[in-house]
Amino acid sequence: MASQHEPGDSDSGVGADAGRLARQLAFLLEADRLKQVERQTAIIGGSRRENTAEHSWHLGLFALVLAEHADEPVDMARVVAMVLVHDLVEIDAGDTFAYDETGYETKAAREQAAADRLFGLLPDGQGGQLRALWEEHEAAVTADARFANALDRLQPVLLNHAAGTDAPWVRHGITYEQIVRRNAVIADGSQALWAEAHDRIAEAVREGWVANDGAGPAPG
Amino acid sequence: MASQHEPGDSDSGVGADAGRLARQLAFLLEADRLKQVERQTAIIGGSRRENTAEHSWHLGLFALVLAEHADEPVDMARVVAMVLVHDLVEIDAGDTFAYDETGYETKAAREQAAADRLFGLLPDGQGGQLRALWEEHEAAVTADARFANALDRLQPVLLNHAAGTDAPWVRHGITYEQIVRRNAVIADGSQALWAEAHDRIAEAVREGWVANDGAGPAPG
Repeated sequence: MASQHEPGDSDSGVGADAGRLARQLAFLLEADRLKQVERQTAIIGGSRRENTAEHSWHLGLFALVLAEHADEPVDMARVVAMVLVHDLVEIDAGDTFAYDETGYETKAAREQAAADRLFGLLPDGQGGQLRALWEEHEAAVTADARFANALDRLQPVLLNHAAGTDAPWVRHGITYEQIVRRNAVIADGSQALWAEAHDRIAEAVREGWVANDGAGPAPG
Repeated sequence: MASQHEPGDSDSGVGADAGRLARQLAFLLEADRLKQVERQTAIIGGSRRENTAEHSWHLGLFALVLAEHADEPVDMARVVAMVLVHDLVEIDAGDTFAYDETGYETKAAREQAAADRLFGLLPDGQGGQLRALWEEHEAAVTADARFANALDRLQPVLLNHAAGTDAPWVRHGITYEQIVRRNAVIADGSQALWAEAHDRIAEAVREGWVANDGAGPAPG
């Protein structure tokens, strides 16, 4: 992803450029629908659930502020771009609750079809670039993607901890062991951020919000 | 803003780093409140108003997709970072409607106080960096800031055009001349994007959604 943009980077010719811009604007208007995809997590204060568009903004801010805590060198600009597009497929595929095992069986196929349609709205080269960034995030192999994934897990842990007894953890009866199994990948991106996340999960057990299935810290 | 981040960029010493990380997380949780700031613009479909957090995400996506249309070279990563933080001050200062002249008289003072408090939550160097990015956006002098401002005006024009008779333009009786006066700065960042915006404003006049005060295109 080139970060420096010179005027006229796009296809030559006014006609080609007008068609290109029309496709880009159509994609950006379609992307607006991500504001209607609801997540399980509530916003701070608990007045309503978070939507995926504002979640993605929040992760962009996390990347800007927390990049120094990545355990391997990361390209902050790529991480920011990755988190901004990482959930676009939910426009068609919906949000799959992190602890919904049945939903996860069909998630990959639903999201590939969504990626075909959504990134396909863009001019070919550009759609391919953004799709590659999304695929990289999904694969979670590169340092940038592992750190982006860490932020994507850390953010709901912080919001759920702040929600206390109103957290989806509590509503759905999720246990300490399930939470740790889901979120331990934060450590693949940042040991420091995983320590912060684990502190909050442990506190949720001590407070009695989350059941300890034998493996976790004793309730206080 | 350095884009490449090496592990250990932050202050040396575990104690210093823990305090630094605590401040960063406190800032990120406080930033969550931007999800509760309502704008005049409605999301596509019109089911509710847009909030400033999801607006900021949308602008980040605009920057990723439209950077090639900037009339001067821009650093896409800086533009993305700028739009992600450009409205954070609305957590304290609220959103000032674009056509509210009374609100605009006190806007600058309210927003400076908000910037003091919010960016002050971060470790000093980092808070200063993000605040500088916000100040640069407000001043709209650099090429990056002019382009970021262009996107910030273009996005609501697209949503308002899509809303037809439900647009805030219509609700508040804003005229063609007022809309053009407000949005012509898009041309300072991109002539191509201003042409697209103006096409939609002109259509709003032709459709009879917006009054033509003599200067605009004739209603159809």
